[in-house]
Amino acid sequence: MTWSIKSNRLNVEDLLTEESLYFTGNGYLGVRGNFEEGYTEEAKTIRGTYINAFHDITDITYGEKLYAFPETQQKLLNIIDSQTIKVALVHDGEEEWFSLFGKSGEVISYERALHFDKGYSERHIHWKSPSGKEVKIHFKRLVSFNHLEFFIQEIEVEPVNFNGIVKIFSNVNGDVSNFVDKNDPRVASGHAKRLEVTESKLEGSVAAVEVETYRSKLRAACAASYQLSVEGEINHKEGTQSIETIFTFDLAEKVTFTKTSVFTDTLRHGDHPIQTAIELHAKIGNQTFSHWLENQENYLKDFWKHAGIEIKGDESLQEGLRFNLYHLLQSAGRDRYSNISAKGLSGEGYEGHYFWDTEIYMVPVFLMTKPDLAKQLLLYRYSILDGARNRAKEMGHKQGALFPWRTISGSESSAYFPAGTAQYHISADVAYSYIQYFLATNDLEFLRDFGAEVLIETARLWIDTGHYHDGKFKIDAVTGPDEYTCIVNNNYYTNVMAKHNLKWAAKSLSLLKERYPEQYGGLIKRLNIGGNEESSWEEAAEKMYLPFDESLNINPQDDTFLQKAIWDFEHTPEDHYPLLLNYHPLTLYRYQVCKQADTVLAHFLLEDEQDMSVIKKSFDYYEKITTHDSSLSSCVFSIMAAKVGYYDKAYDYFIETARLDLDNTHGNTKDGLHMANMGGTWMAIVFGFAGLRVKESGIYFNPSIPKQWDSLAFSLQFQGRLLKISIDKNNVNVTIEEGNNLEVMIYEQSYEVSGDKALEVPLRS
Amino acid sequence: MTWSIKSNRLNVEDLLTEESLYFTGNGYLGVRGNFEEGYTEEAKTIRGTYINAFHDITDITYGEKLYAFPETQQKLLNIIDSQTIKVALVHDGEEEWFSLFGKSGEVISYERALHFDKGYSERHIHWKSPSGKEVKIHFKRLVSFNHLEFFIQEIEVEPVNFNGIVKIFSNVNGDVSNFVDKNDPRVASGHAKRLEVTESKLEGSVAAVEVETYRSKLRAACAASYQLSVEGEINHKEGTQSIETIFTFDLAEKVTFTKTSVFTDTLRHGDHPIQTAIELHAKIGNQTFSHWLENQENYLKDFWKHAGIEIKGDESLQEGLRFNLYHLLQSAGRDRYSNISAKGLSGEGYEGHYFWDTEIYMVPVFLMTKPDLAKQLLLYRYSILDGARNRAKEMGHKQGALFPWRTISGSESSAYFPAGTAQYHISADVAYSYIQYFLATNDLEFLRDFGAEVLIETARLWIDTGHYHDGKFKIDAVTGPDEYTCIVNNNYYTNVMAKHNLKWAAKSLSLLKERYPEQYGGLIKRLNIGGNEESSWEEAAEKMYLPFDESLNINPQDDTFLQKAIWDFEHTPEDHYPLLLNYHPLTLYRYQVCKQADTVLAHFLLEDEQDMSVIKKSFDYYEKITTHDSSLSSCVFSIMAAKVGYYDKAYDYFIETARLDLDNTHGNTKDGLHMANMGGTWMAIVFGFAGLRVKESGIYFNPSIPKQWDSLAFSLQFQGRLLKISIDKNNVNVTIEEGNNLEVMIYEQSYEVSGDKALEVPLRS
Repeated sequence: MTWSIKSNRLNVEDLLTEESLYFTGNGYLGVRGNFEEGYTEEAKTIRGTYINAFHDITDITYGEKLYAFPETQQKLLNIIDSQTIKVALVHDGEEEWFSLFGKSGEVISYERALHFDKGYSERHIHWKSPSGKEVKIHFKRLVSFNHLEFFIQEIEVEPVNFNGIVKIFSNVNGDVSNFVDKNDPRVASGHAKRLEVTESKLEGSVAAVEVETYRSKLRAACAASYQLSVEGEINHKEGTQSIETIFTFDLAEKVTFTKTSVFTDTLRHGDHPIQTAIELHAKIGNQTFSHWLENQENYLKDFWKHAGIEIKGDESLQEGLRFNLYHLLQSAGRDRYSNISAKGLSGEGYEGHYFWDTEIYMVPVFLMTKPDLAKQLLLYRYSILDGARNRAKEMGHKQGALFPWRTISGSESSAYFPAGTAQYHISADVAYSYIQYFLATNDLEFLRDFGAEVLIETARLWIDTGHYHDGKFKIDAVTGPDEYTCIVNNNYYTNVMAKHNLKWAAKSLSLLKERYPEQYGGLIKRLNIGGNEESSWEEAAEKMYLPFDESLNINPQDDTFLQKAIWDFEHTPEDHYPLLLNYHPLTLYRYQVCKQADTVLAHFLLEDEQDMSVIKKSFDYYEKITTHDSSLSSCVFSIMAAKVGYYDKAYDYFIETARLDLDNTHGNTKDGLHMANMGGTWMAIVFGFAGLRVKESGIYFNPSIPKQWDSLAFSLQFQGRLLKISIDKNNVNVTIEEGNNLEVMIYEQSYEVSGDKALEVPLRS
Repeated sequence: MTWSIKSNRLNVEDLLTEESLYFTGNGYLGVRGNFEEGYTEEAKTIRGTYINAFHDITDITYGEKLYAFPETQQKLLNIIDSQTIKVALVHDGEEEWFSLFGKSGEVISYERALHFDKGYSERHIHWKSPSGKEVKIHFKRLVSFNHLEFFIQEIEVEPVNFNGIVKIFSNVNGDVSNFVDKNDPRVASGHAKRLEVTESKLEGSVAAVEVETYRSKLRAACAASYQLSVEGEINHKEGTQSIETIFTFDLAEKVTFTKTSVFTDTLRHGDHPIQTAIELHAKIGNQTFSHWLENQENYLKDFWKHAGIEIKGDESLQEGLRFNLYHLLQSAGRDRYSNISAKGLSGEGYEGHYFWDTEIYMVPVFLMTKPDLAKQLLLYRYSILDGARNRAKEMGHKQGALFPWRTISGSESSAYFPAGTAQYHISADVAYSYIQYFLATNDLEFLRDFGAEVLIETARLWIDTGHYHDGKFKIDAVTGPDEYTCIVNNNYYTNVMAKHNLKWAAKSLSLLKERYPEQYGGLIKRLNIGGNEESSWEEAAEKMYLPFDESLNINPQDDTFLQKAIWDFEHTPEDHYPLLLNYHPLTLYRYQVCKQADTVLAHFLLEDEQDMSVIKKSFDYYEKITTHDSSLSSCVFSIMAAKVGYYDKAYDYFIETARLDLDNTHGNTKDGLHMANMGGTWMAIVFGFAGLRVKESGIYFNPSIPKQWDSLAFSLQFQGRLLKISIDKNNVNVTIEEGNNLEVMIYEQSYEVSGDKALEVPLRS
């Protein structure tokens, strides 16, 4: 049960949401959980297949366009549809096409499932045709984790009360558009159709289609081949937009039909993606579904071994956690072109853009469970470093790199700069993730080859953005994570993150100088690092101004935040939340009101910058004025509630978001899953209840357990080791399952753990 | 010479600029100085006729649209063209059409002029046709100040070396669009054609066309009639878009042709503007050009009597000043539908929108020279007060009126709110103009019927926007006049203007309570003024926080302005000005750099709020960091330089802007004249060199004269009197030309002036 989700709902609104929940993907390719045979003509569906980062370019229009406002943005495209498989029973020469919504047929039973341990989704249907013929149909599909280009579907058709002719229709269709809702002006702005078919052909028995986008001129291809377990007649129809194939055969006993689709694109597969796809078919395209499934299971076995998480005492939560981790795994980009978009590969929301969410809410999960994927995500940022350098120049900086607030291919796609480009903190967030990667892996070579350069260029941005005033280094006119307060001076979050960034830019150079003097010299030369630059970073870090209010004993969110009036929560009607949909931004900016964790998030990421008393007082203060209108907020409040000892609150915040998509609590899961929230849920457990911190000085735990649970256990990777942490009502146990001895800090006390023996420490109540 | 401008330039770029410089208008109607016969096909021209406030509605598009962003804006429309009159000499049956750009004809002489004392423009041309026929043509045109609907053209054609057939072509053309420059993406966004012809007809000899806008559904009409001084043949061609008329006659001696066009619209003339236009023709449409001209001269005689300004010692400046005043007179709206747009009625720049410029840079001019026009401008604001109340609600306010930053019909048309809607000060600026109107006219009835309500509703806005903090009333998240620093807390300008606004809301009620107790009671009831509201305004005014920096002895522009780094002027290349065209707004917001006078402007408008030492120090401080990238800036710096005794600087700033349009120093005069700058020039003399201030305590002068001038003299209206002020190298003279005795303050000393005798006070050096 807790290794899968299941559903037997058949109303269209639910199905639209389930298209996201049941999507299958592998970080490269994502296929929404659409029905092979479709719904009805009128039913709303977002029928989508996406290749991570495969995008077109669209214009951004402004009422008043000012200097350096981006003129275009990128948009993730729905590409060639190879999901379609339709089944017909032939009765007296008439075709009775199978549909779960057929007017005269009957659904005797229906259930769908997505399996987190096996890596596939399936539908079991028992159907009676209009003429009374009963058939059991079993759809299975998987998107391979082992060979990223492969999407495999298997359909078993089993007669119940008849023998006779059956037809299976399948196609590969390049005539596709992005989703448009005519009733929603926000998406009906005419960007739906952004590509055209450039080639469609049948090569041997492989049906192949290639498309090209209008403006980015990227091309993608899909090639499909078929296997049928019985003899039958095959008819192909080669169209200009699609290749259709019809199989006709006698159904006497269970027949198995397999469709293997290979997706390729010009970003990764050279100039002839259609040919590459056909060649991939020739190599490994004729494997059975069972074969793919076996490989898939092995892959996931390894994944869960390192990323396992178990809660005893709450099955639905257990389900939610595995669901989240599984979808994160399905969405994380595997190459330098791609990352994790706000909706992963599960939908078209936020146009497939990558935000800071990756570094702050998702990289930490992979870093501790599957660091090779974390590394890939970091490499993506490295690949757009030149774009970030250019953006810094456009924004008037003499040096440094400013990462775009939202982007696919590296150029800024944000059209509202106060809550977009102004969020300079994204550059420090990227830097932070490189630092955490180094701390969690000890991978100095990665720091040498990639990390140092990113740290240096972002440090340079801070030097160019900030200035000294009254002996302190200050940063003006930026926006912190809280989008209800924009363009402020000395946002605490930004400043403390920039401080960390600056310190580590200098530190990484020291580390390299000592261990890799030659490459260090090369870097100094290549990046033209001036004689006093390193010390200027250290000095700016040391003198970084971190706003602090003596009387409240908290860190103000920015220089003037505490002088503003507090939002009138008492007289704000319930239906006026989220506030951004009911108040002009200027109104929100005028008050002390937060959309999401900001200073509180900074206290999580860099807790040693403040005393516990300040952290606690700040938590109390900001909690009262935070609406959590962003799905990135509650998990952080959960983590910090656990830290400051508000265990009940920690649990309440956790529960608010742990099943956000499964229960569609935000009402927009149809547009895709909330990926950062999924990462945040895991973080709330591991960084929150278990109190994990990875610092330069080592690995820390501060364990607790909600009273609602019997026990909590999870696996972690740390500097080449596999650890298992389990917490019950009385003790915390730390086991080294693989790797060397380790010093761990539990409740600020140091323990040496060896592989021979689990460490057991009594739980502090 | 100094009562007109003249030109004999004939290259197209100059002509495009001259179309603005030579425009004729009367505040209702504006006709650009296009040539009747046109230029060449390829030449760029903005052929325009505008009715003040006659607009269509267009969509505003946003990359990201947030709550309460305006969805549409208004746009001033180019309407029916009745300028066209073409002349042909017939030679051997061939028509030789007169053109100043004809390839084989020859321009023997050409000169154009615009007369400020007579109120018309003219062109004198001596032309030789391709076949060698010489003719003198004299074009005259005027837009009547006495009957606002009337535009009259007269053409005299005089043969030089031949007798023969001449044709005159004239039309009334409804097939018109707004200007689009295909090379300028900012204007080519497809909003050019915004109206269509609904009716065109010939009624008797009157050619009439009516148009309707696409979306606002406003209609305008033009009806034209003709007079020819000789017998001739007349042919009409009635088209669906236009009515063309051709006159054919024998030219033996000078022939006079008159075209009288009447413009009407549904805002002012009821539902049948075309019929109203035809009826107006029947009433007064058959007058001669001389008759119109005589009335025009009388009107202007009166105007110049009250608005005269004379500088001895600088003729080009004298010309510039009269030019400015004349164009202000031509552009100021005469009814409650209209105001003065940023470009007046001279062009299409800023889409015909009205800004705060009216109240701060133009109303003061009319207030002291032609208060009936100032009153009209104030009545326009009163007419959009309900729109301002609605906008306040949209912006989340529980009470009050927020005037739109840019508008025609009263709804916000600003698409970039940080430098638009956020400029809340416009509401205080409007209030200020009502206060100044009261002080300059003593018109308590106007305060009773209109002013008090505006003051009260704007005061309520401040109460709802601001809040108490540390015992002070503070206003957060607004933008002051300086658009290089947006969305700040406690902008000095805004706060001090709001203070004045609040104080006068209470004061106006006290005044009414005493003088008009009954209407006072009615107002209290109608506006539902609560028991403690008046005292709450007084308290907020009294406790208004005005930022002050002890160490610099200046008023900071806002709470954090002085903590920012100062812009690196030294390393900013000359061609990077204006900065807004070369830097992202966020970059500008990060530094101490001003586009225009902000605190310095506040010190002009409300000088008694600070000591002279603070005003002087502030001037010194802000001068160093102000780019004057706005044309609203230098005049204020000139005024304040004079105040603090920097007389050379005052002159330099004055000179920078006094001939801005005449010399096209900003390079965009083709899009229309810079109306606010024109007002500012007058203000620099009267408020600057002469040091005029109108306060509750009386009328003040602080006279000086630039050493470059011999003398300076100007007329003023004050509380029903006509004053004449003249300043020479030694003395200032104040004469009461009409009206009662008056106490005036000169150099802070009080004098009683009577009509019998000029007051003479020695000039302080």
